Amino acid sequence: MIEEKIYNFNSHGDHRGELVALEYPKDLPFPIKRIYYIYNVPGNERRGFHSHNKLEQILIAVSGSVKILLKTPEDEKTVLLDSPKKGLYIGPMMWREMFDFSDDAVLLVLASREYDESDYIRNYEDYVKAISNMKGEGKND
Amino acid sequence: MIEEKIYNFNSHGDHRGELVALEYPKDLPFPIKRIYYIYNVPGNERRGFHSHNKLEQILIAVSGSVKILLKTPEDEKTVLLDSPKKGLYIGPMMWREMFDFSDDAVLLVLASREYDESDYIRNYEDYVKAISNMKGEGKND
Repeated sequence: MIEEKIYNFNSHGDHRGELVALEYPKDLPFPIKRIYYIYNVPGNERRGFHSHNKLEQILIAVSGSVKILLKTPEDEKTVLLDSPKKGLYIGPMMWREMFDFSDDAVLLVLASREYDESDYIRNYEDYVKAISNMKGEGKND
Repeated sequence: MIEEKIYNFNSHGDHRGELVALEYPKDLPFPIKRIYYIYNVPGNERRGFHSHNKLEQILIAVSGSVKILLKTPEDEKTVLLDSPKKGLYIGPMMWREMFDFSDDAVLLVLASREYDESDYIRNYEDYVKAISNMKGEGKND
């Protein structure tokens, strides 16, 4: 079963507005090596469709809302991101898709590694095979 | 005279939306040690009012717009941040104030160091004195 790992960040909020600050190791499980943000996504578009071999990420809807589908060969789970105080951790070997972006959605992603195309698995069949191979290796231990 | 340093980030945009990715050293002048984001700021509020001894930052309006006042004892300049593709670099010993946040503004800040209260100069008179002392030291070289 997929158990999503949610970080509930503190906000330093007062009459002047809200401020969420994140640094490793106080607030994050890894040092930030790369960030990216996704925005202006049409509401009917679906993105993602990949897994990573090693990369760890934290996804935050810093504006608006977006749904994240987490998927393994055995299970799937949809997580709604709708607050700048909520971070979704996604570890290695987890298939993910993003959808239902609100018009004002900005999805900020903090990544544990620099960009590396060879870390991506972009085909779902390849992903299932890779998971199957990992389990096979486990059985031979 | 204050010359603002603007980074114009590339966006990987297509019909699925926009994506801006930032990592050191390809896109940024320093490794990211901390990030913070400011949001839900009332339009009439003014924030900032400090300088840093050593910290370097990049400010990005990932949603909406905000104005940044950059100030030294000799000069001041206001920079409008209104695009997720525009990053404003602020180096050490620069007084800054943020104002005119739009209702939907999310100001993302990338910082070169972890949080350190002793790096802040929060009083403008102290800031002017510190600048003056630095110039005095320069003259004695």
